[in-house]
Amino acid sequence: MSEFEPLRNVRIVLCEPSHPGNIGAAARALKTMGLGRLVLVNPKKFPDPDADARASGAIDVLQAAQRYDTLDAALAGTSFVGGLSARRRDLTPVVTDVRAGAREFVAQARSGEVALLFGTERTGLDIEALSRCHRLVRIPTNPEYGSLNLGAAVQIVAYELRAASAEFAPESLQGSEVRPAPHEEVEGLVAHLEATMRGTGFIHPDRPGRLVQRMRRMITRARPESEEVAILRGFLNSVTARRNT
Amino acid sequence: MSEFEPLRNVRIVLCEPSHPGNIGAAARALKTMGLGRLVLVNPKKFPDPDADARASGAIDVLQAAQRYDTLDAALAGTSFVGGLSARRRDLTPVVTDVRAGAREFVAQARSGEVALLFGTERTGLDIEALSRCHRLVRIPTNPEYGSLNLGAAVQIVAYELRAASAEFAPESLQGSEVRPAPHEEVEGLVAHLEATMRGTGFIHPDRPGRLVQRMRRMITRARPESEEVAILRGFLNSVTARRNT
Repeated sequence: MSEFEPLRNVRIVLCEPSHPGNIGAAARALKTMGLGRLVLVNPKKFPDPDADARASGAIDVLQAAQRYDTLDAALAGTSFVGGLSARRRDLTPVVTDVRAGAREFVAQARSGEVALLFGTERTGLDIEALSRCHRLVRIPTNPEYGSLNLGAAVQIVAYELRAASAEFAPESLQGSEVRPAPHEEVEGLVAHLEATMRGTGFIHPDRPGRLVQRMRRMITRARPESEEVAILRGFLNSVTARRNT
Repeated sequence: MSEFEPLRNVRIVLCEPSHPGNIGAAARALKTMGLGRLVLVNPKKFPDPDADARASGAIDVLQAAQRYDTLDAALAGTSFVGGLSARRRDLTPVVTDVRAGAREFVAQARSGEVALLFGTERTGLDIEALSRCHRLVRIPTNPEYGSLNLGAAVQIVAYELRAASAEFAPESLQGSEVRPAPHEEVEGLVAHLEATMRGTGFIHPDRPGRLVQRMRRMITRARPESEEVAILRGFLNSVTARRNT
């Protein structure tokens, strides 16, 4: 099983979404993260041109969306269900933050079907939906304003599901493309800079001060590549050549 | 300093956004995660009712958005800059994934102003913008379709910045004694170096090539302090003075 294969077992279920634009945004959010199973329970307006527009290149996910009249029909075949909710309530299942929750859902998805439920834009999940959840998943937000757009909430959840699948494995770990020049080239540059600074009279021979130290420190921090060392030395040569003509 | 206070030092900079709806979505994304500083460089259409509608309860962030004609004006006062980019390119700065990148930006924001740049919806950041970045930040996505909506990308970055603030252990942050110069001083140095390179004849006016880009990249990587900028500019002045006598 490839690292991202569990994502095929994840359904993202939008319960009675009001705005078709949000359905399209959700489709795009899923596809960018390698998820593909969008499920709609009683969407107010769908299909709709706003949904198509916001889906952009994820129109295939939108068109493949499954549509049900009841939540229970949408959940058929699943064995682990989470509900997104900003609020604490009575009778809630175990609460987890979205990062830890995503790990748990990916782990569960390795052996079975799972679903994540998103409520309406205005009121979230109702008590009937919450009662079907094994976990209540919370996205940590600003306590003074935590009202995430529905599409944005789906995006964060999808992102965390993908991250949990890969745990940011090797492919995301590309680092620097800088190939620093070897020590002796850097030292050659420092010596050349010092000589040129003396040549232009910038450094007084009798009080060199900390100037060269400071320059070496900065150049060391920059970790210049060989080509950059060559450019700088070419420039320093041009300074000396001009002065001597 | 409270755990979320560094977020006040973070600017989210949208470069030439085309769709006002995305500006509104970005404002809402920021506010839900406790960020508040939205900066716009040459927005195509702003203010606009679509921006207001998508901002929802974050209309205050939208109205406080600062607007500039140039990227350099938008970056004045910053000392650490990241650019969101999906593509690999030549001459890119160090690449980091958004989770690790968020930790780094929050750490930097504890002692100075930082900025994160988002490019246009269609083409992303241009080479001029990338050359001002100390980090290139990537959101891991589906290799077959990684086209995140602009507002969605801002949402993920804002979410990771908030998460990084919360998990951050202040005492682990001591380290570097480097106090990088603000953006405008570094740009002043780059311009001065270019002028001097032209003056000595090192750069041919008709084929400037990639020399200046390479120098900016290296200087950006070095993150010079103000004193170092002053030394280098003093040296460049001495080059010009000598040639003119």
